[in-house]
Amino acid sequence: MSTNDKDAGQGLTEQVVASFAATPDARLRTLMQSLVRHLHAFVSEVEPTEAEWMAAIRFLTDTGKMCDDLVRQEFILLSDTLGVSMLVDAINHRYATGATDTTVFGPFYIRGMPERAYGENMAFSPGTPALVHGRVLSTDGTPIEGAVLDVWQTAENGMYSGQDTAQPHGNLRGRFRSDAEGRYAISTIVPVSYPIPTDGPVGRMLDATGRHPWRPAHLHFMIDAPQHRKLVTHLFDEADPYLKSDAVFGVKPSLMVAYRERAADHELARRFGFDGPFREARYDFVLDLDRS
Amino acid sequence: MSTNDKDAGQGLTEQVVASFAATPDARLRTLMQSLVRHLHAFVSEVEPTEAEWMAAIRFLTDTGKMCDDLVRQEFILLSDTLGVSMLVDAINHRYATGATDTTVFGPFYIRGMPERAYGENMAFSPGTPALVHGRVLSTDGTPIEGAVLDVWQTAENGMYSGQDTAQPHGNLRGRFRSDAEGRYAISTIVPVSYPIPTDGPVGRMLDATGRHPWRPAHLHFMIDAPQHRKLVTHLFDEADPYLKSDAVFGVKPSLMVAYRERAADHELARRFGFDGPFREARYDFVLDLDRS
Ligand SMILES: [Fe+2]
Ligand SMILES: [Fe+2]
Repeated sequence: MSTNDKDAGQGLTEQVVASFAATPDARLRTLMQSLVRHLHAFVSEVEPTEAEWMAAIRFLTDTGKMCDDLVRQEFILLSDTLGVSMLVDAINHRYATGATDTTVFGPFYIRGMPERAYGENMAFSPGTPALVHGRVLSTDGTPIEGAVLDVWQTAENGMYSGQDTAQPHGNLRGRFRSDAEGRYAISTIVPVSYPIPTDGPVGRMLDATGRHPWRPAHLHFMIDAPQHRKLVTHLFDEADPYLKSDAVFGVKPSLMVAYRERAADHELARRFGFDGPFREARYDFVLDLDRS
Repeated sequence: MSTNDKDAGQGLTEQVVASFAATPDARLRTLMQSLVRHLHAFVSEVEPTEAEWMAAIRFLTDTGKMCDDLVRQEFILLSDTLGVSMLVDAINHRYATGATDTTVFGPFYIRGMPERAYGENMAFSPGTPALVHGRVLSTDGTPIEGAVLDVWQTAENGMYSGQDTAQPHGNLRGRFRSDAEGRYAISTIVPVSYPIPTDGPVGRMLDATGRHPWRPAHLHFMIDAPQHRKLVTHLFDEADPYLKSDAVFGVKPSLMVAYRERAADHELARRFGFDGPFREARYDFVLDLDRS
């Protein structure tokens, strides 16, 4: 005979929370017990049918199966498109320090890409030539020498090298280094807006919910320097039409740059080897001191 | 310069909720917006470090990769061990109707197992012989003829056939049918307690949190009859030491049975072909009318 009633769920939640009471690590205990309470609160609120629950199980399974060891990480995409990645970012960088704003890491980073010289070209596929340059500074304004700027962006087809195996190794990726005055310079192409991959569960979720998959054009940076906090961020093209509806909620006003038109006879053309018109974007990064 | 502050998270949550506002299906919109609010509330409460967030991404990815197309469904195990499956069960069967209580489906069901005659033996591996029998009734007490009882249990090694490929096809599985008086009878072995699989992410979670992986001995039933609601349940051995600490929170007092000792000369021995001492468990199932 049925022993279920309206309170069955609440008693169950407390029973599950209690099952984690003996977790040796206090932090893990807090995480699991909070997870159980919030997950049960969600389920109790929406009251899924058994078919909906099974659809969720299948969605999560498909999401795991979509991941590979290289550049397809569908759970990061899911976290990004549900705004969780940016929330974690906000939590971990909530105090104004004068440092450059952070944004999502994304799933497309590849470690060990080529080291490149000051101003070296990293674009081996077509596009509008561009120079991205500026300085890396500490919060007190001191230039940082030897900061490593690991950068990556998509080709004009909207795909990252690694994701698109037709692109040459290291295309639109590289590790640049700041000089004694903290200056860095990257010869590349103007980034384009691109859709996040839509051939997996996250794409199906966006489609079913009437959301578009587009990200505004951006160049990824992960900047590492001695005595400073690692900075993970993007520079967004301030002219992009998707700045207000980024599929992963990553845009911050402070991270926009202009890619300004420069003629073939501009003084920077000679210095960086552009043989026609190009664009110039300038941005100074400010790194926080590592206080840990 | 940093634009984050304590309220950054809240503004972000509302922005993500709003991104689902144009979802064409109203139910999906409700599900996604509630998910975002609860997921963000969890993240805001525990304030994960970036390393903890990445550990969660890896855990979910590993959980998906652990699933196969047969009997290993690690996300169902995760749902079970976090009490979510039983919560969904409670929500979907909350009103007392006089029908038999439900419990978790679990990840080990296989469809299309052999049809078996009244009283047929389904055990082809060692164990204590047992007869499980009784009747299938409607809530008004009427016997139900032709109910299909799809049953499954582990061998004495704690593994289900399919999971343990050394067991013969259909071992400890089968589809029985109730007769004109609603009677069913299953020749089998007494079930044993068994640990849920611990060689995957869920096992690592249980280990890290000091929880054991054991389930009290049980026989699974999925019972289907015309005009009635499908019943998914277990019968638990009332003598099992894990009844109060089931790793998946599936035990309900109404689902316990005694496996009583019977001598070789018991009248049921002759009728069901037992050639030595055996156990007898009796249980009458009550199915709810399908009012959908
Ligand atoms: Fe990107
Ligand atoms: Fe089981």
